[in-house]
Amino acid sequence: MNIRIGILGYGNLGRGVECAIKQNADMELAAVFTRRDPAGVKIQTEGVPVCRIEDAAEWKDKIDVMILCGGSATDLPEQTPQFARLFHVIDSFDTHARIPEHYANVDAAAKEGGKVGIISVGWDPGMFSLNRLYANAILPEGKDYTFWGKGVSQGHSDAVRRVPGVKDAKQYTIPVDAALDAVRNGENPELTTRQKHTRECFVVLEEGADPAKVEETIKTMPNYFADYDTTVHFISEEELQAEHSGIPHGGFVLRSGKTGWDGEHSHLIEYSLKLDSNPEFTSSVLVAYARAAYRLSQEGQSGCRTVFDIAPAYLSAKSGEELRKTML
Amino acid sequence: MNIRIGILGYGNLGRGVECAIKQNADMELAAVFTRRDPAGVKIQTEGVPVCRIEDAAEWKDKIDVMILCGGSATDLPEQTPQFARLFHVIDSFDTHARIPEHYANVDAAAKEGGKVGIISVGWDPGMFSLNRLYANAILPEGKDYTFWGKGVSQGHSDAVRRVPGVKDAKQYTIPVDAALDAVRNGENPELTTRQKHTRECFVVLEEGADPAKVEETIKTMPNYFADYDTTVHFISEEELQAEHSGIPHGGFVLRSGKTGWDGEHSHLIEYSLKLDSNPEFTSSVLVAYARAAYRLSQEGQSGCRTVFDIAPAYLSAKSGEELRKTML
Repeated sequence: MNIRIGILGYGNLGRGVECAIKQNADMELAAVFTRRDPAGVKIQTEGVPVCRIEDAAEWKDKIDVMILCGGSATDLPEQTPQFARLFHVIDSFDTHARIPEHYANVDAAAKEGGKVGIISVGWDPGMFSLNRLYANAILPEGKDYTFWGKGVSQGHSDAVRRVPGVKDAKQYTIPVDAALDAVRNGENPELTTRQKHTRECFVVLEEGADPAKVEETIKTMPNYFADYDTTVHFISEEELQAEHSGIPHGGFVLRSGKTGWDGEHSHLIEYSLKLDSNPEFTSSVLVAYARAAYRLSQEGQSGCRTVFDIAPAYLSAKSGEELRKTML
Repeated sequence: MNIRIGILGYGNLGRGVECAIKQNADMELAAVFTRRDPAGVKIQTEGVPVCRIEDAAEWKDKIDVMILCGGSATDLPEQTPQFARLFHVIDSFDTHARIPEHYANVDAAAKEGGKVGIISVGWDPGMFSLNRLYANAILPEGKDYTFWGKGVSQGHSDAVRRVPGVKDAKQYTIPVDAALDAVRNGENPELTTRQKHTRECFVVLEEGADPAKVEETIKTMPNYFADYDTTVHFISEEELQAEHSGIPHGGFVLRSGKTGWDGEHSHLIEYSLKLDSNPEFTSSVLVAYARAAYRLSQEGQSGCRTVFDIAPAYLSAKSGEELRKTML
């Protein structure tokens, strides 16, 4: 029997999960849950109902794993513990500083419900975290680097959109090649915020707005831009639509370390992602971990887990025997 | 109490394990076992005994994890099952085609002894395998690529050394940049053996040997060189010593895949290693998995495992709480 997946929240991430389920023969989409009026939400999978979030509890025995596709600011801190009492759940909670608190809440709820909850799944947190852990365990004496981009930062794009005189905007985070090269050359550089990334903004102005003032406001914005070298381009609404409607992202996790009796040998471990669609890639990771949650539950496990706690084999549809034969 | 490690076999790999133990505060080297006369083997760690392999069984209660540092051709198929009856064991068995058989043998022996055996640990098999598995689970529709190098191939160097007229030699395996670039550009190329790697040989001739004949013999050697573009350089013994005494290696694992309802978005996952010392890096992976074997055994587990079966958190000396706080 297939693993029955529910999608809770049908934005970019939810739509990505729907696509990813289609690529996995051992899974099927059971239902989509939305805060909107279900009658107004059209999904791509034929014959699958769209329901109100309020009715999700009725699906308790018809869904194995609920994938929570809401935001980390307000949705997930509430939803993940709530639904972990009813379903095995996966979320992409990405507020790094609040992970310990979220973990504790989900763990208590999941144990209460006898369910498995896997939190902070995606690529950062997620695959990047895994690579930091593996690399640190292998090379205890070394230095970590994470670079993001080139890609669209939703938070920074939103910040630019809030600037008076800005009609619409997209912001790209770009890693600095010279910094990446220094790391790859084993120079173990100490890098400031400004040395690691630049920021590039494509801005559509409101009629009559003063470009010089808008540019100044963006570039000096504390936390978001003041510590970076930022470039601002003013473009037309049509150009923004045509050239900047995608949601690409990616990045690099590197660890440079030493081995040998006197640390005489250097090593570089590098993991990188180049993603056309940030939400669809994140969704694909969520779906792989949904399989893991289901399998852990079949073993009678319950409680909260992160990517650190899941043996890789649980993610694959292949058997252990097949994996050893084909991928080891 | 520290995890007490034994090293069985004191060649490049065994010496690397000794160095790696020194970098991990929760471990200590208990003893080194050698086939040679122990009196003639000098190790670097003060106060640690060198013993005969035949006496290893006497250490049953004084060693937690035995790291087997022999070769895959004849040592490990025999030693890993043998010692898995007495100790938790880790090996770097790398004959890909024989892994299923080795797994079965170690599994039976380890279960008999109530021990944990983790086989095929290192970087390929090992970290490269893990990256293949993760990437395949995340992107079910895609294509895998593995490139090796630039690095010294021990097997190919040995093959060159067996050519009549060759006094000594080192062979480097080199990935072809154009092929790597095609993969990174998402072209999903079908690559022949010749298109993926080139081979470069540095050869010291015996006195009076015919360079043209040696070069021809190397370049046309079936399996080893005939399917590759091979370059042969003749150098002096001094130059070989001065310039080619290291054992660097590395490589790239890439997966290029599609997501979206109609596969409209492309993604690239890339993992790469640049290693000054192949055996020391492999040893560092072995030691991290020794920690995992010890912890699994503390949970009462036994039997054979591979890197696919081990949750990443088991590799780290940090607690789950610490990991979530600092690396997720």
